[in-house]
Amino acid sequence: MANVIEGNAVVGQSGGPTVVINQSLVGVIEEAKKAGAIQKILGARHGVTGMRKSDFVDLRSIADDELEKIANTPAAALGSTRDKPDEAYCQEVFKVFAANNVRYFFYIGGNDSADTARIIYEIANKQGHDLRVFHIPKTIDNDLRTTDHCPGYGSAARFVASAIMGDDRDNASLPGVKIDIIMGRNAGWLTAASALARQDSEDGPHLIYMPERPVSQDQFCADVKAVYDRLGRCVVAASEGIMDVDGKLWAEKVMTGGEVDAHGNKQLSGSGALGDALAQIVKTRVGVKRVRSDTFGYLQRSFAGYASPVDAKEARTAGRKAVQYAMAGQVSGSPCMRRRTGGKYGVSFFRAKLTDVARLTKNVPDEFIADNGHDVTPAFLEYLRPLVGKLPVLGKIR
Amino acid sequence: MANVIEGNAVVGQSGGPTVVINQSLVGVIEEAKKAGAIQKILGARHGVTGMRKSDFVDLRSIADDELEKIANTPAAALGSTRDKPDEAYCQEVFKVFAANNVRYFFYIGGNDSADTARIIYEIANKQGHDLRVFHIPKTIDNDLRTTDHCPGYGSAARFVASAIMGDDRDNASLPGVKIDIIMGRNAGWLTAASALARQDSEDGPHLIYMPERPVSQDQFCADVKAVYDRLGRCVVAASEGIMDVDGKLWAEKVMTGGEVDAHGNKQLSGSGALGDALAQIVKTRVGVKRVRSDTFGYLQRSFAGYASPVDAKEARTAGRKAVQYAMAGQVSGSPCMRRRTGGKYGVSFFRAKLTDVARLTKNVPDEFIADNGHDVTPAFLEYLRPLVGKLPVLGKIR
Repeated sequence: MANVIEGNAVVGQSGGPTVVINQSLVGVIEEAKKAGAIQKILGARHGVTGMRKSDFVDLRSIADDELEKIANTPAAALGSTRDKPDEAYCQEVFKVFAANNVRYFFYIGGNDSADTARIIYEIANKQGHDLRVFHIPKTIDNDLRTTDHCPGYGSAARFVASAIMGDDRDNASLPGVKIDIIMGRNAGWLTAASALARQDSEDGPHLIYMPERPVSQDQFCADVKAVYDRLGRCVVAASEGIMDVDGKLWAEKVMTGGEVDAHGNKQLSGSGALGDALAQIVKTRVGVKRVRSDTFGYLQRSFAGYASPVDAKEARTAGRKAVQYAMAGQVSGSPCMRRRTGGKYGVSFFRAKLTDVARLTKNVPDEFIADNGHDVTPAFLEYLRPLVGKLPVLGKIR
Repeated sequence: MANVIEGNAVVGQSGGPTVVINQSLVGVIEEAKKAGAIQKILGARHGVTGMRKSDFVDLRSIADDELEKIANTPAAALGSTRDKPDEAYCQEVFKVFAANNVRYFFYIGGNDSADTARIIYEIANKQGHDLRVFHIPKTIDNDLRTTDHCPGYGSAARFVASAIMGDDRDNASLPGVKIDIIMGRNAGWLTAASALARQDSEDGPHLIYMPERPVSQDQFCADVKAVYDRLGRCVVAASEGIMDVDGKLWAEKVMTGGEVDAHGNKQLSGSGALGDALAQIVKTRVGVKRVRSDTFGYLQRSFAGYASPVDAKEARTAGRKAVQYAMAGQVSGSPCMRRRTGGKYGVSFFRAKLTDVARLTKNVPDEFIADNGHDVTPAFLEYLRPLVGKLPVLGKIR
């Protein structure tokens, strides 16, 4: 323990929440309470925003039964932020850390948050302030590199699969074309998860459009028509980041106005405009009368009471691991998962470098995308199935 | 059993599906299999559409374990229909019934379906064909008269409450105004159910707009502003049937184009346009920067794996009761629920007249709506709570 210094810890949450992000938070708190070297456990309100303003809450004083409730609560219990701090912003955060004898920093977030953690770590290093910095992966998008999958993804995938499962039966009851817009601007992981809804070859989703496989409006309409002609109905799972063959987002082309966030990204969620536009295209160009769209929106990342049990457990463990790494004398990193090969599903955690997680996006790889460009492969289903927990088993009148 | 005649039975499903409508179907099948007087148990594909075309499936041959899976499957396993048959259409259905020695007719649906059942019953009567006709209530809208509540409502209410519960935490993480559009064109029952999401006085939904209480755009904006000024955020639960003070639907005013169904109703679901319009109004008139909307859409009536256990059980019983009434020699009716007064929640079933269920809508009564017009009363929460099953218990960092 020679390399473990005494001081205070800060933990924060950042980016779009998940239903298990508080499992990681509680994992950090539990483990930090056991660590003799950690004095105060400070929760930063709204991520870096609270760190810069010294807006901290004492997490050590929360009772165990309340902690357990918090762990099972969707979204960031500490509050989240969309701030993407630059060097100057990080300097301000560091000043607050130095003034508060902060020696441990745990940041739960996506790849932008890993990058923020990296910058703050480097500033501390330059200033000769011994600060241990750990990022804890979380994203429903599953687009972080290095880790087999991300905490948060399994639960969102579970929601999407169950939603499409029911929606497909609804569409069979009152046949038509149904278009469901699924989160994931840059990567199709969550949209791909819709495939788990299928129990037989005629079940939807019949078409799955991921950003990894651009599609023209002509092709899209032809695909929908082919399914509709064959089955008399069609359920489409389309990523909010669905791309045209010219490399432009469909959303940019068919939506007017809209917001741009601090990262320069156009706001896709929180609006039904893309789904409505796709429905209109099918109505007018394919000539189907009953066309509906739903945009699953924030429910995918926040629906209460339906988390994947394995995802919840892994998210908790990820939080604990980060503290364990710190207590083992490590100075930075991100707890990532490696999947056991062969036999029953299981993972082991390892410490990845911050730079290996930061910034870059992991897309759905080619071996998980069907050759036709609008479906997934059996290998993907095998990858995904253990992450979502037990799904409903539906019946059918033939 | 003198009054019980031998012959075939037809069962059908109609209108917007629910996640427990197949529980009622399986209840009918189970009980009909036990009834000596019932020979064939014919399932009509897509309600009256299949009846008119003699498109029937043999339901007696389905294995018990498959029946149990079907019971747990969202949406109409037989297919549903939006056809609203007139007298001539019903005459055609009756001809098919007469030709197939149909003596028992069970129709699972809402108030329009009850009316269809009534018309077919009257035609049979006039023609001297002994036909026993039973309607089995189902609707997520909870707007049927006579019954304490409708099978299908509890599960949809459970979905809405859990969705708003998580969404409210999401909105607390990244504060702004969030507008959620909830199904229920004519009655605010399902929108009102969002109130169950609250666990303390600052939790959302902060504003609940039901069709029963028209609201002007000015008042709506003032309400949102007041909440936003107080809490720095606001979650709004608005019915798709939200009305302006001039008696016009907001949807009619702010949405352009759109479909009209066979009942002359403008299509409200399957589009995010109303939510987007409300968000735009808040952005421009209240001046809040982060405004998002979600339209819960078809997930409310079809999400797999999250039914209310009590709702599932009651829906099953409703199907059984209809057959039991028929076997007891009754000639028509609809199994409705009466709530036990005092003590633990429970219901008893009674046979209502078709005419008491048909056509008219039951709105949320005054005693369930708060005086401010945008909330529910404690009496409503007491009415609703037993219907949805156990909800998640969330934690909070104070």
